[in-house]
Amino acid sequence: MSESVERIWINVNLATFDRSEAAPYGARLNQAVFVRGDLIVDIKAMEQLDNLPASAEVIDGRGGWMTPGMIDAHTHLVFAGNRAREFELRLEGASYQQIAQEGGGILSTVKATRAATVDELVELAVPRLEALMREGVTSVEIKSGYGLNPEAELNMLRAARELGRRYPVRVSTSLLAAHAIPPEYKDDSDAYIDLVCSEIIPAAAEEGLADAVDVFCETIAFSANQCERVFKAAKEHGLGIRAHVEQLSNQHGAALAARYDAWSVDHIEWLDEEGVEAMAKAGTVATLLPGAFYFLRETKLPPIELLRKHKVPMAVATDLNPGSSPLASLRLALNMACTFFRMTPEEVLAGVTRHGAMALGQGEELGQIRPGMKADLLLWDIESPAELAYQFGVNPIRQRIVGGEVANV
Amino acid sequence: MSESVERIWINVNLATFDRSEAAPYGARLNQAVFVRGDLIVDIKAMEQLDNLPASAEVIDGRGGWMTPGMIDAHTHLVFAGNRAREFELRLEGASYQQIAQEGGGILSTVKATRAATVDELVELAVPRLEALMREGVTSVEIKSGYGLNPEAELNMLRAARELGRRYPVRVSTSLLAAHAIPPEYKDDSDAYIDLVCSEIIPAAAEEGLADAVDVFCETIAFSANQCERVFKAAKEHGLGIRAHVEQLSNQHGAALAARYDAWSVDHIEWLDEEGVEAMAKAGTVATLLPGAFYFLRETKLPPIELLRKHKVPMAVATDLNPGSSPLASLRLALNMACTFFRMTPEEVLAGVTRHGAMALGQGEELGQIRPGMKADLLLWDIESPAELAYQFGVNPIRQRIVGGEVANV
Ligand SMILES: [Zn+2]
Ligand SMILES: [Zn+2]
Repeated sequence: MSESVERIWINVNLATFDRSEAAPYGARLNQAVFVRGDLIVDIKAMEQLDNLPASAEVIDGRGGWMTPGMIDAHTHLVFAGNRAREFELRLEGASYQQIAQEGGGILSTVKATRAATVDELVELAVPRLEALMREGVTSVEIKSGYGLNPEAELNMLRAARELGRRYPVRVSTSLLAAHAIPPEYKDDSDAYIDLVCSEIIPAAAEEGLADAVDVFCETIAFSANQCERVFKAAKEHGLGIRAHVEQLSNQHGAALAARYDAWSVDHIEWLDEEGVEAMAKAGTVATLLPGAFYFLRETKLPPIELLRKHKVPMAVATDLNPGSSPLASLRLALNMACTFFRMTPEEVLAGVTRHGAMALGQGEELGQIRPGMKADLLLWDIESPAELAYQFGVNPIRQRIVGGEVANV
Repeated sequence: MSESVERIWINVNLATFDRSEAAPYGARLNQAVFVRGDLIVDIKAMEQLDNLPASAEVIDGRGGWMTPGMIDAHTHLVFAGNRAREFELRLEGASYQQIAQEGGGILSTVKATRAATVDELVELAVPRLEALMREGVTSVEIKSGYGLNPEAELNMLRAARELGRRYPVRVSTSLLAAHAIPPEYKDDSDAYIDLVCSEIIPAAAEEGLADAVDVFCETIAFSANQCERVFKAAKEHGLGIRAHVEQLSNQHGAALAARYDAWSVDHIEWLDEEGVEAMAKAGTVATLLPGAFYFLRETKLPPIELLRKHKVPMAVATDLNPGSSPLASLRLALNMACTFFRMTPEEVLAGVTRHGAMALGQGEELGQIRPGMKADLLLWDIESPAELAYQFGVNPIRQRIVGGEVANV
């Protein structure tokens, strides 16, 4: 035990999600966690504790549970505009034509987002980000994808980076310029993919705005061939790869993305066993988005049994976005992943900790409570970790710790 | 404009839910609301405003929207014990027998609730009640039903009353002794109904603990004949009548309850047109519980079109309870009623205001913004009322007003 240990949480039950722990949740009861700077440096059972260093700040967990900070590995939380009217119109029985006439659909979000400044995008995102943080999110992925031109795509990523500077939360960014075909290119999506590969990706890489590149591989968006061009450009610029695949149909996008060592493929309701095998081989995470499944009233379930069989790590995320998942709650996503997809509480909690970190290419730093990991931790007033997936609405969080610092919202 | 007006909210857009207003949501833009004591006494358009009385406290709504306080007309939020383990076991594939062996099911809640004191029941309910209040609930119905003997049933209602005294929220109580057959009477449910009618209802009425009596009319609970005996006893003691009916099968409980002038019948997925007609005639509210529909993964939808056709008022509530709806969020229930039941945002918001009040027998005092009504009001940072049903996770509440007093949680 070093004199330079700075903070020690004592009397905590740990759900470590350490892959080397055999117990469910990687649970270890009645422990002490030693943090120096922003790292976890040691974990000891309380009964093996010697005198604590006088210099350390000691925090008594009083029997609460500690988990890794929660990671929301898939969000579109930077955007402008409001789609409540579209929601209302649809429920009042309006046709798609009427909704389009009243300016609904993704292009309404694109129009509003293009018209916003970076500062405005930041301000509009703040309540959504705070809602996530309040429930225990310490890392959040934020995508572009409502700009669909060089300036507006980069502005979205600048807003995302600014949120990370302004708030005690880690922000991972994904350039999703290939989200939808912009109106200017509606008859020539290949030319737009040229623009993405030759201009937008290089500019984002140059400015350090993107950690990864993302695509929407779907009949209503971009073909597998077009996505492959984007993956190649991403690789050339040293960026991670993620993809929206197999949401509405099977385009074999998961296997393609896996061939490019994707960190994560997301949605995957229509994924087949061949795709699952490709993911298993590549170590690609399956990110499940029950909020969009719910909001779109999908009935096709993601192949959870196949993912289990091939030991593909499963992440769970909100997909927070104005069109198909206006749900700013990762706790709700946990409950929905259990309820709709029949995942276990342990699986869904691993999905927002260890596997969420892997989906961001950060599996070696985040998402587990063990020495060497970043000290992103949550202290909860709960009797068991399963409660976090079971109950909803009550927020039993006591402390939210980011990089060793208590940072409650 | 009287000198005795105490508080005036100016520059507010109103979603009055006043049944005499023709506009959707009963909307009136740019208004001032005059409150004296705990009542709304006047509403004026801003452009018609004269000098405001010097004695009044003036609150500038700055263009926010004001709605009636939200009413959660169906909860079981007083209980002890924790069913997270049962949730986990079920998702891990445990059989019902294993779950029963590990002490799951409603009887585990009964056991824990019987063992708790009134003070303990209050303390355990506080986080759940606060979660509801934080989102804008100003009135909440709370049921007994986990005691299933005279002492424990009355203790649950005492805890509910105590919550109403301790917090700025109106509590309406329902005696639901006929919720499940207690283990002591498992072979003689009629004898338990004798006890309910001859002892528990009179005692609750005597002590002023119950505003209404509730029953669970279902094959797995009590027959229509048994429920009718309970309704008669309730009538004799001047108590309101509510019922859980047609949740898992059609027992014609709604028509029966309507014959006894029930305030509300709840769940009603299996309700038929005859039942709907009986409700329309009696003025009985249909209380829809999308949280339980979701959590139990039901597929049979309540007959929304029939309820519309016969102009039966529809309320929406959480059904917050540990077994089938551990969801302490009325905002989530709004979104789920839209998503699952295809109700419109206007319908679901009427369901937690005007119609929620009617479901509690308080339609003449609560649930509308108009002179003479209680000043239970919410001030929101939203662009349109539909947002409250559309978005989730972000809580745009600015002020929560109960009986004319600002009472944020
Ligand atoms: Zn997405
Ligand atoms: Zn109920």
